[in-house]
Amino acid sequence: MTNKSSGVQALQWTGHSLKVLDQRQLPEKISYDEYTDTHGVAEAIATMRVRGAPAIGIAAAYGVVLSVYRHYSLSVDNWRQHVLADIELLADSRPTAVNLFWALNQMKAVLDGQQDNPLPTVLACAEKIHADDIAANYKMGDSGADILANAKGIMTHCNTGALATGGYGTALGVIRSLYARTPVKIYAGETRPWLQGQRLTVWELAQDEIPVTLIADSAAAWLMKSGAIDWVVVGADRIALNGDVANKIGTYSLAVLAKQHDVKVMVVAPTSTIDGSIQTGDYIKIEQRQQSELLPACYKDNALVSAWNPVFDVTPAKLISAIVTERGVVVNPVESGVGGLLKI
Amino acid sequence: MTNKSSGVQALQWTGHSLKVLDQRQLPEKISYDEYTDTHGVAEAIATMRVRGAPAIGIAAAYGVVLSVYRHYSLSVDNWRQHVLADIELLADSRPTAVNLFWALNQMKAVLDGQQDNPLPTVLACAEKIHADDIAANYKMGDSGADILANAKGIMTHCNTGALATGGYGTALGVIRSLYARTPVKIYAGETRPWLQGQRLTVWELAQDEIPVTLIADSAAAWLMKSGAIDWVVVGADRIALNGDVANKIGTYSLAVLAKQHDVKVMVVAPTSTIDGSIQTGDYIKIEQRQQSELLPACYKDNALVSAWNPVFDVTPAKLISAIVTERGVVVNPVESGVGGLLKI
Repeated sequence: MTNKSSGVQALQWTGHSLKVLDQRQLPEKISYDEYTDTHGVAEAIATMRVRGAPAIGIAAAYGVVLSVYRHYSLSVDNWRQHVLADIELLADSRPTAVNLFWALNQMKAVLDGQQDNPLPTVLACAEKIHADDIAANYKMGDSGADILANAKGIMTHCNTGALATGGYGTALGVIRSLYARTPVKIYAGETRPWLQGQRLTVWELAQDEIPVTLIADSAAAWLMKSGAIDWVVVGADRIALNGDVANKIGTYSLAVLAKQHDVKVMVVAPTSTIDGSIQTGDYIKIEQRQQSELLPACYKDNALVSAWNPVFDVTPAKLISAIVTERGVVVNPVESGVGGLLKI
Repeated sequence: MTNKSSGVQALQWTGHSLKVLDQRQLPEKISYDEYTDTHGVAEAIATMRVRGAPAIGIAAAYGVVLSVYRHYSLSVDNWRQHVLADIELLADSRPTAVNLFWALNQMKAVLDGQQDNPLPTVLACAEKIHADDIAANYKMGDSGADILANAKGIMTHCNTGALATGGYGTALGVIRSLYARTPVKIYAGETRPWLQGQRLTVWELAQDEIPVTLIADSAAAWLMKSGAIDWVVVGADRIALNGDVANKIGTYSLAVLAKQHDVKVMVVAPTSTIDGSIQTGDYIKIEQRQQSELLPACYKDNALVSAWNPVFDVTPAKLISAIVTERGVVVNPVESGVGGLLKI
């Protein structure tokens, strides 16, 4: 084990509520919001207080627990229909991260067979989803670091660390594990428009005393041309069976640029990110967020000015050198796809 | 003529001072600073109140006029050495835009032969540099629009409009001329870290009632993949004899991405942007600006956190389909370079 644990916690289950670190306020302010009902958790996901595919799934699982707590205490007979309605509410909070639906399906499966008091079972399921995610992160951290052993420079995008997961991180977990073994130069892209790289990744790494250099997203190509980067290491919000990967807008750009500069691309994600229902990335619904995330306020009612604000893009499998999961690594996913990982 | 003039003026010569639109405050506020000495003009360039290669050259020319006004009025015998010192000061204000040195050399040449009252001559030279730039913009606007005649979607980067020039614009001048002929969809990249695209290009186009759609810089590849873009049209800060082009950071990225998506790249710049002293882009000095332009203030004294902030990058000639100047268009500059334009 070469892992060094991270002290950052995006989600804290208190026993009766979910505390969510408001990531929109980082790095200036560390502020937790406490939620005691499902509506609050769905709102926290939709407003991006919590973000990152695995963290969204875990938050949603606890959101179901809160729903069961509330509705079972109100009626031991009619709680189920209310909980199912709350699950729909959670499913509608963000469209792209498949981990959200995966976690909700796990919770639904547990509820389906439940006739007695469902409280202990649903809580145990949510806590297992959370704990399994952290364990998966550590495992991926080691596997990914093995592959990156000889790298001198790593570029990452968005935030895929403890803040985006149950703890530790996917791509950032690999980077943490690698840095614990050997000094490697780490570059983070700002990740407009939300600046998750600038606000979250830089903050997390600094918390763990790992040096990091921030760049504008558009400077990545010029940095690659200088020879400073061996690998681009990113997370994923959804992976199709053929290995196409939906991830933060800008990932596709980095992958195309990497190919042209002999830089390799690694995607790090738990198997809960794989969508077994779609063959290719063409079927992935890409969330479009508000124009106001890009436009100055003065253009609010100006019909001449608009913004195109997709939150994710899809990187074809052929541009990816390795997909690292907790069940194993797929090298050159374009050759075999990732469906085999779901059968393990 | 299909041009439609722009009402935006970044630089206004009053007869005794230079008024500079403080572009850092756009689009929220239209505020002019008035300079009566060279130091002020150099400061306005260094602090990016005025930016854009042609506008920097014009501002510097008026800065020399202000120097002559001051020092000739103080001493009709010893003014020359003070003016030459002020020219050095202006030359040190920004390192990459060759138009700055080109304009200062023009002013120096005029001064060299001058024994009598130099005031009328230097003012005439600065005003000619300014007027010639506007005339060049209109000419390039027409030539560029001819080439883009069948384009449906254009992407631009940074700001190359009236704000970046004597008026009208280089790349944005071509886009203005094209839009005046035919409705074309225009996309502007935000252009981090200064957001010239978001703050200036969107503002200029909206002022002229030209619709524009803003995107995050990192979304350009995904937009190209959608088929929405036929041409990337950008300006230049310096062009080497072989056709390599230094321009705003992110231009190289767009050019590499364009090549991979069958999108063409047009560079629009007056011949004053061509540096006849360098064969290739390898010799272009790239300005690095402060880390604080990228990093949140809380990392000011944090040794773990740094930023890499090159303001420009160099796009090799082989990625450029056309370089448009006021003296003519070079198609596929990688084949012939641009030196021929300097001999016309």
